[in-house]
Amino acid sequence: MILPKEVNLMVKQKMILDLDTGVDDALALAYALADPAVDLIGVVASYGNNLVQQTAKNTCQLLDLLGHPEVPVFLGTHHSMSSQSFKVMEVSKQIHGENGIGNISLPEPEKGPREQDGIDFLIAAAHQYQRRLTIVPTGPMTNLAEAIQKDRSIIDLIGNVTFMGGALTVEGNVSEVAEANINQDAEAANIVFTSGLPLTMVGLDVTLRTLLTKAETAQWRQLGTVAGKTYADLTDFYIDAYDHLGIDHHGCAIHDPLAVGVAIDPSFVSMIQLPMKVTTAGPNYGRTIGDKARLNDHRRLVNVAVQVDKARFVNSFMSHLKVMLNQQS
Amino acid sequence: MILPKEVNLMVKQKMILDLDTGVDDALALAYALADPAVDLIGVVASYGNNLVQQTAKNTCQLLDLLGHPEVPVFLGTHHSMSSQSFKVMEVSKQIHGENGIGNISLPEPEKGPREQDGIDFLIAAAHQYQRRLTIVPTGPMTNLAEAIQKDRSIIDLIGNVTFMGGALTVEGNVSEVAEANINQDAEAANIVFTSGLPLTMVGLDVTLRTLLTKAETAQWRQLGTVAGKTYADLTDFYIDAYDHLGIDHHGCAIHDPLAVGVAIDPSFVSMIQLPMKVTTAGPNYGRTIGDKARLNDHRRLVNVAVQVDKARFVNSFMSHLKVMLNQQS
Repeated sequence: MILPKEVNLMVKQKMILDLDTGVDDALALAYALADPAVDLIGVVASYGNNLVQQTAKNTCQLLDLLGHPEVPVFLGTHHSMSSQSFKVMEVSKQIHGENGIGNISLPEPEKGPREQDGIDFLIAAAHQYQRRLTIVPTGPMTNLAEAIQKDRSIIDLIGNVTFMGGALTVEGNVSEVAEANINQDAEAANIVFTSGLPLTMVGLDVTLRTLLTKAETAQWRQLGTVAGKTYADLTDFYIDAYDHLGIDHHGCAIHDPLAVGVAIDPSFVSMIQLPMKVTTAGPNYGRTIGDKARLNDHRRLVNVAVQVDKARFVNSFMSHLKVMLNQQS
Repeated sequence: MILPKEVNLMVKQKMILDLDTGVDDALALAYALADPAVDLIGVVASYGNNLVQQTAKNTCQLLDLLGHPEVPVFLGTHHSMSSQSFKVMEVSKQIHGENGIGNISLPEPEKGPREQDGIDFLIAAAHQYQRRLTIVPTGPMTNLAEAIQKDRSIIDLIGNVTFMGGALTVEGNVSEVAEANINQDAEAANIVFTSGLPLTMVGLDVTLRTLLTKAETAQWRQLGTVAGKTYADLTDFYIDAYDHLGIDHHGCAIHDPLAVGVAIDPSFVSMIQLPMKVTTAGPNYGRTIGDKARLNDHRRLVNVAVQVDKARFVNSFMSHLKVMLNQQS
């Protein structure tokens, strides 16, 4: 049966990525573009792995490289809610390169970010697409927190928010308790966690189990395309950084792509439901944890991914990326 | 069909409780005695809610009250592995009473603890019953840690260890990260967690969801038995303490009975499997958390209960306790 085009478009998931691009953000972007079930209606840029101007530029350059310059990019906030400025952490440069994308040089983007503010874009899209809209933040949660503070009505409109961030059942990666994205702005994360938004947390609990190695990036290089070589180069930088910094000698965690994967197909992971909060003061700043005070209250629960079918997810990710990276030459 | 007595006995679970009796330990004791699937072969006493001599005495008195003076009680360690002595915490006295059992006065026990050391009893039972043996620690893990250090062969013999302790997905109750039992001896807990013993953790994640109220204790009082009145009195003390201390105004958590329940019927909870460790130094002393370094290593996993079927568990607990507390008059 051939469906009319309108029907076919209707079943597509409207997705906004909120990226601080970033090597694994670059991988998440290619994955979302590659999946025919996804209609990527825009990317909001965040500070995080780099300054927001740089992450927006990276996203524009990668969209050009992947043959999708039509996807609009919007600038989000420049810093956390509790600060007046943002400085890139040294470890971010070590992991993602000075420019955020493994020090790979790409042509200047065909066009830069749109004039519309990223937060206003999130609000407008929520009203336009409502339950059909999925937002996938893979950096700090500042943009989303500011959007719901500006227009609380979107909390009940948005279909799903699946984010990379946090650590519930394992230790953090910037402290014993805190994961890097949440740690950038724990206040924003706590606003989002306790808002009532339909949230799925894809944290270190599962992303540290999805390692990619140079055996996989070699497959991209062998495609013989510019996109294949570029993605292999920037991911190899990231794998080398993991090795040098002693984060993992067996490969790199593809944190952000797993959030995209779970947004498309939640069955990649198993989840538990918890009333979650984020610690915003004291030595445990940035900890994502169940709220004891609301343990017998079944509202505002967060889906927290705790186990992952690594083989099936990495298969899906690799098959999609090979198609996407092969299209350009 | 009537089974020969030997067959009938063989299907019973051989259980050792390791209690620091304590009000909820008293409830766990009655529950284990009441369940026909359980053959309670002994109770090891631990320091914790009170001094070990006092918790052993409390257990002996409660066994008399419940009509089971034949169950042997053994003295375990007097203090944690890293200390030379133990002092009862003020908050323990506030929750469990000066004597550990809600300041209720009971007749002197018919007999005291056995001469055999509690740790030697654990080791001997492991060799005798092997896979049929379930150990349920509801206090500090010092006894069990010392037993496996004295005879490592029991690690592969014991059928199951289901303990009350720890907090993975919620904050602790003695610090933001630590639960009271684990906090008494984090070193011992870490030895047990990483030993390879078949472990099931019943922590605050689930026990804080199983609240008991005076509506339930009133049912015991109405039985008109000494045991019913005694158990109602000591549990009401505990419910009042929860209320006064602001732990929970909706009732008391029946921590230790849930560990007994899960040891008998694991389907009361849903569990995740994780390589667990206990933080033994720094401000996060006593935290029970997944070990990132072993996240892709599938040995020595701990079953961690994260959700509980509260209604079904409380039903089972109440129906067993009503039978047990009605037998004596």
